[in-house]
Amino acid sequence: MKDEKRRLKPVDITVMGSGSWGTALAKVAANKGHSVVLWCRDEKQAELISESGRNDRYLPDVDLPSNITPTSDLVSAMKHSNMWIMAVPTQAARSLLSKLRSLETDMDGVSICNVAKGIEIDTLKRVSQIAQELTPKYKYTVLSGPSHAEEVVKGLPTAVVVASNHQEETSLWQDILTGETFRIYSSEDVCGVETGGALKNVIAIASGLAHRMEMGDNATAALVSRGLAEIMRLAVAMGAHPITLAGLAGIGDLMVTAYSRHSRNFRLGMALGEGLSLEEAIESLGQVAEGAYTVKAAVELGKKLNVELPISRSVYQVLYDGLSPKEAIRELMSRDPKPEYPPHIFQE
Amino acid sequence: MKDEKRRLKPVDITVMGSGSWGTALAKVAANKGHSVVLWCRDEKQAELISESGRNDRYLPDVDLPSNITPTSDLVSAMKHSNMWIMAVPTQAARSLLSKLRSLETDMDGVSICNVAKGIEIDTLKRVSQIAQELTPKYKYTVLSGPSHAEEVVKGLPTAVVVASNHQEETSLWQDILTGETFRIYSSEDVCGVETGGALKNVIAIASGLAHRMEMGDNATAALVSRGLAEIMRLAVAMGAHPITLAGLAGIGDLMVTAYSRHSRNFRLGMALGEGLSLEEAIESLGQVAEGAYTVKAAVELGKKLNVELPISRSVYQVLYDGLSPKEAIRELMSRDPKPEYPPHIFQE
Repeated sequence: MKDEKRRLKPVDITVMGSGSWGTALAKVAANKGHSVVLWCRDEKQAELISESGRNDRYLPDVDLPSNITPTSDLVSAMKHSNMWIMAVPTQAARSLLSKLRSLETDMDGVSICNVAKGIEIDTLKRVSQIAQELTPKYKYTVLSGPSHAEEVVKGLPTAVVVASNHQEETSLWQDILTGETFRIYSSEDVCGVETGGALKNVIAIASGLAHRMEMGDNATAALVSRGLAEIMRLAVAMGAHPITLAGLAGIGDLMVTAYSRHSRNFRLGMALGEGLSLEEAIESLGQVAEGAYTVKAAVELGKKLNVELPISRSVYQVLYDGLSPKEAIRELMSRDPKPEYPPHIFQE
Repeated sequence: MKDEKRRLKPVDITVMGSGSWGTALAKVAANKGHSVVLWCRDEKQAELISESGRNDRYLPDVDLPSNITPTSDLVSAMKHSNMWIMAVPTQAARSLLSKLRSLETDMDGVSICNVAKGIEIDTLKRVSQIAQELTPKYKYTVLSGPSHAEEVVKGLPTAVVVASNHQEETSLWQDILTGETFRIYSSEDVCGVETGGALKNVIAIASGLAHRMEMGDNATAALVSRGLAEIMRLAVAMGAHPITLAGLAGIGDLMVTAYSRHSRNFRLGMALGEGLSLEEAIESLGQVAEGAYTVKAAVELGKKLNVELPISRSVYQVLYDGLSPKEAIRELMSRDPKPEYPPHIFQE
């Protein structure tokens, strides 16, 4: 009955974080008639969005529906609803969750849907693990998949996946956000969905590098396929089901990143393939690509869990140990012939 | 000992079929020092290759090593070696295997490596099943993966997979063909490797269609990911292991096809997305794309094995039932929200 009601009636939603993805999801929810409060870390930004009805900094030229109310007051954002979409960068998740915990009055039954991708570099934790540590009472869901925010707000067809340990939570978020051009699949594999989104950026760097070196379509497809295999190995060692990585949050998101010049990580790889050092590449891009951090976490996790990650290791060495891209490729090609998937991945 | 010898010494190899892929693999083998006989169905073509040292029809501008000997005499090609690479189109596999069987003298221990992709439309059989029916004595291996012949002959890095029921056969073909820029993984899953190569062309048509309709990067990634999911469902129902489809012969080959304007299937999809009928599209391409046949087999197999194949079915309806591409996309997006992978695929 509760589910039915949710399916039929608009509800109250809070989106925490007003970057491009948070804003896009606020629009997706508002288009379905929900009353959305959009929390902005920056007071000035909340004012600007209020005045213009647009988020000019992150999603220029997109008019936001009037049922999105921006605010920089976290307490009122919290009180607006008990369904929160968390759209802050992964490295800021701990600080936000700590603050929410400290501000919490007597809220019960909070559902939280994290849409950021990445691993906390200092602790090697995924966001679900941080949430489990700080706010174990919140029912946690993760949403991920191939989803450029710029395309979602234009109403271009997009499919994503939500995963939670609570089945009713995945249905809840499916009901809230599913729209004519926004399709949501469900999964029970929180670890797999989180890990795919985090590690794809490392493989995208390798793909950009290969592209700049004009290595051809075969090589890119091989890199991405073998990149998937190593993401899968690491994810399985962390507790994921391998098949999740063959889905939207794994290969889907990997493709959209590794085949796109719009991806910062792909462009970082291209700059390195041109022969620039990491410092020069970052300077030429004007910003750091997430994969340059994540690769450190990936290599650390690989060591800790005893998982071989040849592509991530090569990317690490090119970024931080002065290995030439050419030599990296040569090494990747000259390893001993191997079974494509080690037999143990076949077993549960 | 036998294996060591093979690893160290050049051997005799026969390649049956002198299209672009057969010729490219003949060159890969010849570059490793093997003595290669290249069987051409057409006497004239064998003469032309002999004279010019090139296969101008299928791989123009590529000089072939002198240790490739073209012939149109099937018996002498058979007698040259007991290691045969079979590189004829799938629909011609039955006729070639029948001929080989009828010509067979007292050959023993033939190893045959099929490199064609597809399903026999009349019988819905894979090539391994045709070989099992006609020539059960041959030890069968299949080689597949993302491998444009044009890139392989240029020495651009390429990775493929070989699968056989006989483990020593996969090692054999790895030893024979592995080179500095040609990397070969092994697998035991013949069915999975064959099915991935066959069905990718159908998804590539859908991808071309979406591309022409400017549906965006999210939509292409979603189509390819969900295309992979349905290939996986069908392959599993046929006896494959799902993880094989997450590998080079599955997602790898699918990517290289679904993201490439060089693919005939992708271009067929683009023509349909433009609003052309199948006849008009074929006329504008000047040839038929394999996926236009395979989709019939896929839909048949789906019915027979009770597997849901929404994308293949939509492609079929656009090709043969006059469904508009726009309507096809709308239908794909408006299906009920689903688990990303049905629970039973998680079980062996």
